[in-house]
Amino acid sequence: MRNPFLKAFSFSKLLPRIGRPRSVPGTVTYVGKKRETRSRLHLIDYTEKDISEASISTVAESLPFLDKPSITWLDITGVHDEEVIHDIGRHYNVHPLTLEDIANTTQRSKVEEYEDYLFVVMKMAYYAEDPGEVMIEQVSLVIGKNYVISFQEIEGDVLDELRDRIRSGRGRIRRLGSDYLMYAIMDSIVDHYFTIMEKISDEIEGLEEMLLLSADQDLLNRIYGLRQELIFLRKSIWPAREVMSLLMRTENDFVTDSVTMFLRDMYDHTVQAIETVETFREMVSAMLDLYLSTVSNRMNEVMKVLTIFAALFIPLTFLAGVYGMNFKFMPEINMRLAYPLWWAAAAVITVLMLIYFKRKKWL
Amino acid sequence: MRNPFLKAFSFSKLLPRIGRPRSVPGTVTYVGKKRETRSRLHLIDYTEKDISEASISTVAESLPFLDKPSITWLDITGVHDEEVIHDIGRHYNVHPLTLEDIANTTQRSKVEEYEDYLFVVMKMAYYAEDPGEVMIEQVSLVIGKNYVISFQEIEGDVLDELRDRIRSGRGRIRRLGSDYLMYAIMDSIVDHYFTIMEKISDEIEGLEEMLLLSADQDLLNRIYGLRQELIFLRKSIWPAREVMSLLMRTENDFVTDSVTMFLRDMYDHTVQAIETVETFREMVSAMLDLYLSTVSNRMNEVMKVLTIFAALFIPLTFLAGVYGMNFKFMPEINMRLAYPLWWAAAAVITVLMLIYFKRKKWL
Amino acid sequence: MRNPFLKAFSFSKLLPRIGRPRSVPGTVTYVGKKRETRSRLHLIDYTEKDISEASISTVAESLPFLDKPSITWLDITGVHDEEVIHDIGRHYNVHPLTLEDIANTTQRSKVEEYEDYLFVVMKMAYYAEDPGEVMIEQVSLVIGKNYVISFQEIEGDVLDELRDRIRSGRGRIRRLGSDYLMYAIMDSIVDHYFTIMEKISDEIEGLEEMLLLSADQDLLNRIYGLRQELIFLRKSIWPAREVMSLLMRTENDFVTDSVTMFLRDMYDHTVQAIETVETFREMVSAMLDLYLSTVSNRMNEVMKVLTIFAALFIPLTFLAGVYGMNFKFMPEINMRLAYPLWWAAAAVITVLMLIYFKRKKWL
Amino acid sequence: MRNPFLKAFSFSKLLPRIGRPRSVPGTVTYVGKKRETRSRLHLIDYTEKDISEASISTVAESLPFLDKPSITWLDITGVHDEEVIHDIGRHYNVHPLTLEDIANTTQRSKVEEYEDYLFVVMKMAYYAEDPGEVMIEQVSLVIGKNYVISFQEIEGDVLDELRDRIRSGRGRIRRLGSDYLMYAIMDSIVDHYFTIMEKISDEIEGLEEMLLLSADQDLLNRIYGLRQELIFLRKSIWPAREVMSLLMRTENDFVTDSVTMFLRDMYDHTVQAIETVETFREMVSAMLDLYLSTVSNRMNEVMKVLTIFAALFIPLTFLAGVYGMNFKFMPEINMRLAYPLWWAAAAVITVLMLIYFKRKKWL
Amino acid sequence: MRNPFLKAFSFSKLLPRIGRPRSVPGTVTYVGKKRETRSRLHLIDYTEKDISEASISTVAESLPFLDKPSITWLDITGVHDEEVIHDIGRHYNVHPLTLEDIANTTQRSKVEEYEDYLFVVMKMAYYAEDPGEVMIEQVSLVIGKNYVISFQEIEGDVLDELRDRIRSGRGRIRRLGSDYLMYAIMDSIVDHYFTIMEKISDEIEGLEEMLLLSADQDLLNRIYGLRQELIFLRKSIWPAREVMSLLMRTENDFVTDSVTMFLRDMYDHTVQAIETVETFREMVSAMLDLYLSTVSNRMNEVMKVLTIFAALFIPLTFLAGVYGMNFKFMPEINMRLAYPLWWAAAAVITVLMLIYFKRKKWL
Repeated sequence: MRNPFLKAFSFSKLLPRIGRPRSVPGTVTYVGKKRETRSRLHLIDYTEKDISEASISTVAESLPFLDKPSITWLDITGVHDEEVIHDIGRHYNVHPLTLEDIANTTQRSKVEEYEDYLFVVMKMAYYAEDPGEVMIEQVSLVIGKNYVISFQEIEGDVLDELRDRIRSGRGRIRRLGSDYLMYAIMDSIVDHYFTIMEKISDEIEGLEEMLLLSADQDLLNRIYGLRQELIFLRKSIWPAREVMSLLMRTENDFVTDSVTMFLRDMYDHTVQAIETVETFREMVSAMLDLYLSTVSNRMNEVMKVLTIFAALFIPLTFLAGVYGMNFKFMPEINMRLAYPLWWAAAAVITVLMLIYFKRKKWL
Repeated sequence: MRNPFLKAFSFSKLLPRIGRPRSVPGTVTYVGKKRETRSRLHLIDYTEKDISEASISTVAESLPFLDKPSITWLDITGVHDEEVIHDIGRHYNVHPLTLEDIANTTQRSKVEEYEDYLFVVMKMAYYAEDPGEVMIEQVSLVIGKNYVISFQEIEGDVLDELRDRIRSGRGRIRRLGSDYLMYAIMDSIVDHYFTIMEKISDEIEGLEEMLLLSADQDLLNRIYGLRQELIFLRKSIWPAREVMSLLMRTENDFVTDSVTMFLRDMYDHTVQAIETVETFREMVSAMLDLYLSTVSNRMNEVMKVLTIFAALFIPLTFLAGVYGMNFKFMPEINMRLAYPLWWAAAAVITVLMLIYFKRKKWL
Repeated sequence: MRNPFLKAFSFSKLLPRIGRPRSVPGTVTYVGKKRETRSRLHLIDYTEKDISEASISTVAESLPFLDKPSITWLDITGVHDEEVIHDIGRHYNVHPLTLEDIANTTQRSKVEEYEDYLFVVMKMAYYAEDPGEVMIEQVSLVIGKNYVISFQEIEGDVLDELRDRIRSGRGRIRRLGSDYLMYAIMDSIVDHYFTIMEKISDEIEGLEEMLLLSADQDLLNRIYGLRQELIFLRKSIWPAREVMSLLMRTENDFVTDSVTMFLRDMYDHTVQAIETVETFREMVSAMLDLYLSTVSNRMNEVMKVLTIFAALFIPLTFLAGVYGMNFKFMPEINMRLAYPLWWAAAAVITVLMLIYFKRKKWL
Repeated sequence: MRNPFLKAFSFSKLLPRIGRPRSVPGTVTYVGKKRETRSRLHLIDYTEKDISEASISTVAESLPFLDKPSITWLDITGVHDEEVIHDIGRHYNVHPLTLEDIANTTQRSKVEEYEDYLFVVMKMAYYAEDPGEVMIEQVSLVIGKNYVISFQEIEGDVLDELRDRIRSGRGRIRRLGSDYLMYAIMDSIVDHYFTIMEKISDEIEGLEEMLLLSADQDLLNRIYGLRQELIFLRKSIWPAREVMSLLMRTENDFVTDSVTMFLRDMYDHTVQAIETVETFREMVSAMLDLYLSTVSNRMNEVMKVLTIFAALFIPLTFLAGVYGMNFKFMPEINMRLAYPLWWAAAAVITVLMLIYFKRKKWL
Repeated sequence: MRNPFLKAFSFSKLLPRIGRPRSVPGTVTYVGKKRETRSRLHLIDYTEKDISEASISTVAESLPFLDKPSITWLDITGVHDEEVIHDIGRHYNVHPLTLEDIANTTQRSKVEEYEDYLFVVMKMAYYAEDPGEVMIEQVSLVIGKNYVISFQEIEGDVLDELRDRIRSGRGRIRRLGSDYLMYAIMDSIVDHYFTIMEKISDEIEGLEEMLLLSADQDLLNRIYGLRQELIFLRKSIWPAREVMSLLMRTENDFVTDSVTMFLRDMYDHTVQAIETVETFREMVSAMLDLYLSTVSNRMNEVMKVLTIFAALFIPLTFLAGVYGMNFKFMPEINMRLAYPLWWAAAAVITVLMLIYFKRKKWL
């Protein structure tokens, strides 16, 4: 197997990802796998000139930074820790419905404006090398005037590069506000979609090569797996377009004009990602048609071989059977030339059959 | 059978659910199965501090509660009792078209604003363990300034949890008005869609596992059953999106601003439910394609086995037939080495055939 | 045949129903079958208190009723009588394009506002028991301030119930104006769509039952017939949605506020009818897929039987052929145990083959 | 062959009709077949009372009519004559882009308003009896205040009836302005679409009849041809809807209110034509499915016959082979009853096989 | 092979064209193949009367032309040279996001308005004769008040004709502003789409011809290749419609009214190109269906031949086998007429079988 990508893919994994919301509105209920560990809180606080970083253990520790004019990014890994989420609600004045959506990681991507903050839910997609699998993770963002709180399900390195950029002061990120930080985080996520696209593109290429060599059941299962994966990927990415579009168009107090231009750019990339998934779907669909037609063609070939063999030998076998009969009075039996003549007849029949098949273009 | 879910599914059940409206406009005509029992009326009246509950026998008994500022929830089970429905019309000043829609349980989901009340029709979906079947039931809501009247076809436990919440005073339900009660009822219904989704998700998983083992007619029938079920489920849920969207956008006297935010959340869940059904449909469609391709592949394999057997033995049988002929003058017959040579020839032919099949990758 | 519904269905009938408009704009040209009979004119004139009914022979006889404040319903059966239509044009001041559309029964459903009247075209669908066939008929309505003129192609009983209601004074029809009469006629037509739906629903159920028993060519032809019928039904009903929507939204002098609520209800029913047709189409499409898969499965089964027979006996036949050869020097021939040993060998081969097929799950 | 319609249809003809625009914007470049003949100019000038007709040889000859209040229709046949088109541009003040679109006959249908005139491009479809083929031709209209210039590619009789109507003064055409003349020309074109529809309807009927009799390759090719033809027809007619819709909605100086009503009617007919093409496409698609299923069914039947023959005789042949062996010691050989017993055994086996096939419903 | 067009087509080429954006927003990163050569800068500066042309080596050399009222067209070939792109940014005040989009050649087509300029991205498609392949290349345009900067990936001759037109002063290009130059460049690109359409049209024609002769695996692969190519072409061209539409509708300082009319024309051509691709897709899809049906038909024919042979000879072979048995007591054996009677029986059986097959229409 050239590409281990979908080898590890199992059907059942798709389904838990199609989630359900909670029962009591406004209740913080984590829906993922049970985890024992506590959430990890990481804080970056920066102005154009200064930057300070800290791993804190309670939400309360982040509050002093709020009063300063600097931009504060509180990155929370793990949304299974209900205490932390309730603390966020208390200290940052976050609406219970928002808290609920943060904990419930089966949300659709969305953007909602509240009085004190903007709330964004997105789906992060990345390829985990270890189990060799595509992972979809929910990232929630609470964007206030001078802070951004981000929530991830598990630790990932998608945002590491962004953190490096903030530390090094590269680009314009240190000069702009919390809206640009929001943009930078979302942009990293959208950018990462294309890593997945490249993986899938490799897989399609590999399957196409295999298809030219053979068309067996294993290949079919892999095409099927890829197709289900694309159905699922599309479901995850599709709503992002709406999010971007809403962010761009809606007037609100949290996104400044200078950032709108960047959102427009990000919108383009999201549309491109979605169109690429659609293109992949069409390509996989065409591939499946090719597979089916190839199988039909091969069956046809098998049938021809069978028919040719049967049609060549069945009449001859009959002819042999005739002279194997034990009738007393069979005049041919005693003729000297009967046996060579029989062979001559067999040869003529064979040649005629071959000409017939040639005409039918079966040979 | 791993999952009894669709085992119990029979085709004919879908069709009665695709209903027809009545003939004379504004006539209360129950369209379901005949029932002898009377409707059951259950009343909950609550303020933030107090709560009283009662099972009443006539609609008139609920009227005293109307004049109080408390929120009254009159829950009516059974819409086949035309007298009760007419009473509602008389006492609560409900329009005949509304009464008709309540009794006719084949309505599309909809929301309509009348002068004195808001009228909402929704489809409740739940999985009845006993016959092992998905049930679709119509729930109609009449929402007035300080009351909600709900109509269900048969007794169910979908709303039990909500009743418990009101009794215990959990959440914000006791503090808010009839619009929040409406939201809470509708939200319970939407939430329940996801229970069905989980059942179907289990079924898809099970079918996929079976598909890897065998591709028989029984599996095919189950895929078909699932597909029809999804066509039907989609037809039931789809209009709910419109309902939510209308409720959110239309300005009316019955929904206050504080509840709009919750409606927005419920809208998101409805969209998620619909998208999940669409995703299921695509998955089932992919599964059917996989099934068909698998059947083709197996037929191909069967054909190959047949062809190999036929092509190996038919020439040999012919060769045996030749020397079974009774011609007098067959010089080979009397040769000492003829028989071993014949076996040698047979072996050579067999080996050549095997090489040929090997080259064609049939072995 | 359980259901004679589609038995009588013949392909060619669909096509004449896909009509063509006339050549000279504003010319009254009847396009249906030639008819010798004259149009029949039936008149009902009513107020809340009084009602008078008459069969009249010329349009002019209806004019005296026009000046009275009562509501006049002039029902004309047969649009092949150009004289009658021209009379309507002259006496009621109806536009030539309207007259043309009345006579040309291949129109799309539509609603058009003219200065003096509203013009509505609808498709009536009903099941004619006698030839056992679905009939589509055009109904045109001219709605003035205090009159409604309706045109039907042939006599039908779809509107009979409505006439009874007017006569008996049941419902609100006698109390309201010509707009409510228009609504009542259109509603009767929409209601009748559901009769057809029920017939089709029965047919689908029947076909599904047959499908479980056998998958023969006759069943296939019936599925095809049903599918064509649904294509056609959809084409007929679809534009009705637009008509209803336009009637509801457009402000005009002919529809009063009190009737708008009823139109909204009728709109819902029309949408429901259209959605039901779509659902049927999907169900029939799923049924066709099931049919095809079932045929594939059966072919597979046939192939397996053939292959098993061939693979079991072909090697044995060969083995028998070997010892049927007449070579002089065949040592086995003369051995005492040869014959029982031969049978033993045959048995071993057979058992091995059976084990092989068992492993392949062909048995 | 019942219907020569598609017999004459060849695949390659579709493709040249899918055209390309020119390279230098505003250049008059004819793209069709080279023609030697000059364009023919025919002029009709009429008021309600008078009418004069003339065949002129240069565009300049038509100018005197322009200053008169009468309506002038200049009908130009042949757009390959660049001189004539340039003359139109010079004398009638027509924009170069318009001239280019007139000469380039691969345009999409469209309507464009210029300062002095309205420009309309439409596709005329008609059935040319001589080669037995559907022809698509571009008709361009330049509509000024009191004149209409029409351009056709080749001479046709689609507009002849209209000319007769003008000559005879039938209908309202002589009483109304150039906008009604425009409508009358366009309406003739739309009307002609239905002639094509009828031809196709006949063809579909014919193919359906054939399908019930046999399902051979010739029928398949004809279904394919029809399908390609419909793809093409749809591409030609589809944009006409937009044209009609724009003409109706846009306010401009060229279309008066009295004509708008007629445009609305023509819009309905165009929509009807498009919907009919869509319906045909669905019917042909259903027909193809029926064809494929029928082929599958027949293959199944062939397989059954083969399997029954093989399964009946292969065991018997084996049994005969057994007693054809030449072993010395075969006790059965010498028994008196052996031969009749052998026949009895053969009969029993045959009966058992027949019962087996009966049970499987293969007989 | 009649047409080498798709012969050279290989699957893997599609995928690199589905690109990914960069990681750090506003970074100029070239994504194509590494190139050593420097970008080539070509400058045309013209007024209605004068024209001067120059190949320059740095962006700075173009600055003197900026202050003159003449129109300056700076054509840059090669976007891999980051220095040149940064120079453009510095000297022409171009936004970093624009620079990034210029270098990243996997952009979607788009139009963006900035303060000082309009930015347009388009996809150029052309057929490279040398490798015999369709190439897609990104062309970016920066349109200022009196200049246009164009960026191409590699040298091509699509714009050569335009340059000639400017040099010769043909058409209106020398008289109009930078917006008309922008239009002229874009129009050249759109026009070139039709060259590709013609190539594909030739290919479809060729495949259809082949399909009538044979239906082999090679043809199937070519249909598949064409289908993938069309999926990709559509993805490239589709967004151009949006670009044109935005350019026409949006009010901005860069497009004057006199050019809007030309944009409208270009929009029509773009829509025509897109519709042609859609039509091709439908035709290829129909072709694939025809292919599959043809394969089914041929399989059917093969099966019939096999079945006829088997059914004719298997019973006869059995009959021969019977009289090949060595039973002592077989009365027929010794009868004089047995042998001729046997042949008579064989003939009768054969005739009966032939009649049977004739009835089934297999012969």
